[in-house]
Amino acid sequence: MKIGSQDQHSTAISTSNETTILVRGRDLTEELIGRVAFTEHFWLLLTGALPTEAQRRILDASLVAIAEHGLVPSVQVGRMTLAAAPEALQGAVAAGILGCGSVVLGSSEAAGQFLAAIVARIKAGEAAAQAAKAVVLEYRAARRAIPGFGHPLHKGFDPRARRLLDLAAQLASAGPHVEIAREVERLLPELLGKPLTLNVSGAIPAVLLDAGYPLAALKGVPILARTAGLIAHLLEEQLRPIGFVMSHAAAKAIDYDGDAPPGFRPSDE
Amino acid sequence: MKIGSQDQHSTAISTSNETTILVRGRDLTEELIGRVAFTEHFWLLLTGALPTEAQRRILDASLVAIAEHGLVPSVQVGRMTLAAAPEALQGAVAAGILGCGSVVLGSSEAAGQFLAAIVARIKAGEAAAQAAKAVVLEYRAARRAIPGFGHPLHKGFDPRARRLLDLAAQLASAGPHVEIAREVERLLPELLGKPLTLNVSGAIPAVLLDAGYPLAALKGVPILARTAGLIAHLLEEQLRPIGFVMSHAAAKAIDYDGDAPPGFRPSDE
Amino acid sequence: MKIGSQDQHSTAISTSNETTILVRGRDLTEELIGRVAFTEHFWLLLTGALPTEAQRRILDASLVAIAEHGLVPSVQVGRMTLAAAPEALQGAVAAGILGCGSVVLGSSEAAGQFLAAIVARIKAGEAAAQAAKAVVLEYRAARRAIPGFGHPLHKGFDPRARRLLDLAAQLASAGPHVEIAREVERLLPELLGKPLTLNVSGAIPAVLLDAGYPLAALKGVPILARTAGLIAHLLEEQLRPIGFVMSHAAAKAIDYDGDAPPGFRPSDE
Amino acid sequence: MKIGSQDQHSTAISTSNETTILVRGRDLTEELIGRVAFTEHFWLLLTGALPTEAQRRILDASLVAIAEHGLVPSVQVGRMTLAAAPEALQGAVAAGILGCGSVVLGSSEAAGQFLAAIVARIKAGEAAAQAAKAVVLEYRAARRAIPGFGHPLHKGFDPRARRLLDLAAQLASAGPHVEIAREVERLLPELLGKPLTLNVSGAIPAVLLDAGYPLAALKGVPILARTAGLIAHLLEEQLRPIGFVMSHAAAKAIDYDGDAPPGFRPSDE
Repeated sequence: MKIGSQDQHSTAISTSNETTILVRGRDLTEELIGRVAFTEHFWLLLTGALPTEAQRRILDASLVAIAEHGLVPSVQVGRMTLAAAPEALQGAVAAGILGCGSVVLGSSEAAGQFLAAIVARIKAGEAAAQAAKAVVLEYRAARRAIPGFGHPLHKGFDPRARRLLDLAAQLASAGPHVEIAREVERLLPELLGKPLTLNVSGAIPAVLLDAGYPLAALKGVPILARTAGLIAHLLEEQLRPIGFVMSHAAAKAIDYDGDAPPGFRPSDE
Repeated sequence: MKIGSQDQHSTAISTSNETTILVRGRDLTEELIGRVAFTEHFWLLLTGALPTEAQRRILDASLVAIAEHGLVPSVQVGRMTLAAAPEALQGAVAAGILGCGSVVLGSSEAAGQFLAAIVARIKAGEAAAQAAKAVVLEYRAARRAIPGFGHPLHKGFDPRARRLLDLAAQLASAGPHVEIAREVERLLPELLGKPLTLNVSGAIPAVLLDAGYPLAALKGVPILARTAGLIAHLLEEQLRPIGFVMSHAAAKAIDYDGDAPPGFRPSDE
Repeated sequence: MKIGSQDQHSTAISTSNETTILVRGRDLTEELIGRVAFTEHFWLLLTGALPTEAQRRILDASLVAIAEHGLVPSVQVGRMTLAAAPEALQGAVAAGILGCGSVVLGSSEAAGQFLAAIVARIKAGEAAAQAAKAVVLEYRAARRAIPGFGHPLHKGFDPRARRLLDLAAQLASAGPHVEIAREVERLLPELLGKPLTLNVSGAIPAVLLDAGYPLAALKGVPILARTAGLIAHLLEEQLRPIGFVMSHAAAKAIDYDGDAPPGFRPSDE
Repeated sequence: MKIGSQDQHSTAISTSNETTILVRGRDLTEELIGRVAFTEHFWLLLTGALPTEAQRRILDASLVAIAEHGLVPSVQVGRMTLAAAPEALQGAVAAGILGCGSVVLGSSEAAGQFLAAIVARIKAGEAAAQAAKAVVLEYRAARRAIPGFGHPLHKGFDPRARRLLDLAAQLASAGPHVEIAREVERLLPELLGKPLTLNVSGAIPAVLLDAGYPLAALKGVPILARTAGLIAHLLEEQLRPIGFVMSHAAAKAIDYDGDAPPGFRPSDE
């Protein structure tokens, strides 16, 4: 049964009446609370169907892989904001999410679009190596980096990426996107003149897209994962504040080089 | 082994070197990715230890219970923001979290503090009924509502709350906070002159605190849960936009009653 | 006198010692407070120099023109957020600014880049009409709208745009960007097959760029202006709340069209 | 003439039809653009009336006094956020406003409420010194700091505060709130056992409330002022990025003191 008119002024995510809350057509109390894990619920919210065991484990692994990576800028932004407004945890979370920025949050999505472009060519009949080569060269022509390859964090190798690919293999969930990711890795030394290995932002869309996770929802994975990490840092900030210490160190690292009247002496501090 | 000086300028959540990322002392790649669920990872990030099966299921159930409840103001805020800035999903998530506000996000924390205040009196030797009565009367004297009781959403009864208490009982995880929540429910008709049943915002801290979840991290549960719901709505907004439709309806519901020059005719629309 | 090393780790906006705050090289207390208007101070902060009388008046007029335009989505976002978190005005302002989005906030910048591209061709020797035609055709080829032309708000004519051009003429501040804006308006009927008149988002960069305001800072004008309007709406929201009324109307405008179990009756409300 | 029903579902700030935008009852194009300064427009938006010359100058001076104070945490938050999401200036402004926090943004409002409480007692018949003493002692009893006194930034003296009081005197705008501020300053050595001089957050509400600016809108002054400073820093960040330099210095200032496996060597960097 569908409720309401099937036009553009509708939502299909949830509704409720005096006794029942429906989420994606299921009774929240009877069918979901206590019966599905949060990760399964997230998949249901996004896609309208519950994930298989393999889908859930791939999504869990992807979220776990990128929830936390130390005192990165977005965590600093969150902790400084909480130090300035201790009563408003949601403000600190919001600032921290803004501080993640499109560079961090968009890297998995960009890699997913790159892999999907190659898979589309293969589905249209091209050989895998040829399709991969064509899309890599398109990116090079547009002076774009190859998203999902290279290792900002780890010298020569991102162990999180290997772990995700191994898991997909073990769950028999690997498919064309993982294959293409490996193929691109093989081709890059020749095409770019240097090796670039798959990083975690490339492995996540490879295993998620093979598992049937929607391409358009890829950005949701780092956002949800980072929110978990942020909340942990904000709890720690309440118990052991370092926001102002970080801010003081940051300010000290920068000089003033604007005009000043004769005789003006900068503060010692 | 501890690294670094044990002073206030430290964090204990994660660190890394060229080959390894440590999260709460565990090797992220070897011990966590593919081995723990996202909910377990969140508990680990917050507390430093992995949850038991019962702890994980209680946290899962709590997150699932409040992730989604339709086109509430925060979801409208998120969808309108995405409509206005389609390239910045993180901006829409941040606005949506701000739109949740302290009223929604703080209700479980407020109820947790209420229950904890009663439990503290009991631990100090008071009888349960007496301790509950004393704290309820303190709140009344301060003209504060009893947090976690009453049913904004459901007439007379919040089925999500029952479900959470049943789950805690089934997992043998219920303890003093659940007991007190039931005790308060029994006492309220007499103390307030009307019955108020436990709602989901009261049940969540009851079952979580009994499971050993930290009181100071209670606000993190609705924030993480709502972020999942928001992301689903923002994915739908990309596919079936309703942000501007909602905004148009909202504007039409409000009149202008300020000054106007003679002869000014308001727009028909 | 310059302080500090002239490298990339510097700021030139302000510094202070125990007795003096320097802003852009000037003593804040002695030279600025009570001596310059807020608009002049904003120009100083951005450019390092105080504006002339004409520059100040052009910037004032631009800010006044776009500070307020009713219950637009960003104002709704701000008011709903304040209703949900009454204690955190800054959260409501932040959400409101996010709700403005790049579509609104970027329109003056986009129009400024369009006008600047034409002016650059003229400086390189092309005739005005030819340069304008070339850039318009480039935009058409890229299927981009001509930014700053057309009238989302007013049928056939945006009186705010005329007012800004008239002011620039009156202050003898009009120059090549205003000229080009008029030239493009003349050419569009022929190039696009329909007339499109200059709107306020096109007039603002025309008069500001001619006045010497930096192109890279154009987006700051709508952000500062809208913040003023938002603050007024948030003050009104405190005194006469309508956030929840708008939210209720917005939710009622949308149906649920997802699955539902047999016999599920939607809420009347 | 009033338009619309005079109930709670109304706004009095602005409306428009096909040809005219009304702001607070005035034709935006004919009466405001090019005729009033941005500061006057802000006062009009907030209060419904244009300010006098003295009112405008007091508001200008207040905004100028606190728009900018170097690489404070909120500016760091904004610049780090822009570094992470260069395409979304509004996200960086929003994060920066969140980073100001209630501590900074609320200080003028808190001082205004303190001064207003004393003035209310005087209007009710108490002598000035007695009223001031009573309210100071109330704050002490509640273990609250006396808001607007003491000098976080300047040793013993805040020159911006003196400048604002002098300006109010010069404009014949000083009244009971300034008088009370001076009275409290005289009384504090005796009441607290140490002198605390009026700071800029205390001087701003003193001069603004005497000028007729609404108490409920005090928080709007630091928000608008800081937004101007933030925009200048974000423009500089685009031209001379230091966001990542600050972030790197902040991270280096903090050690990891959590668990680590035997043999784990922290990164040199």
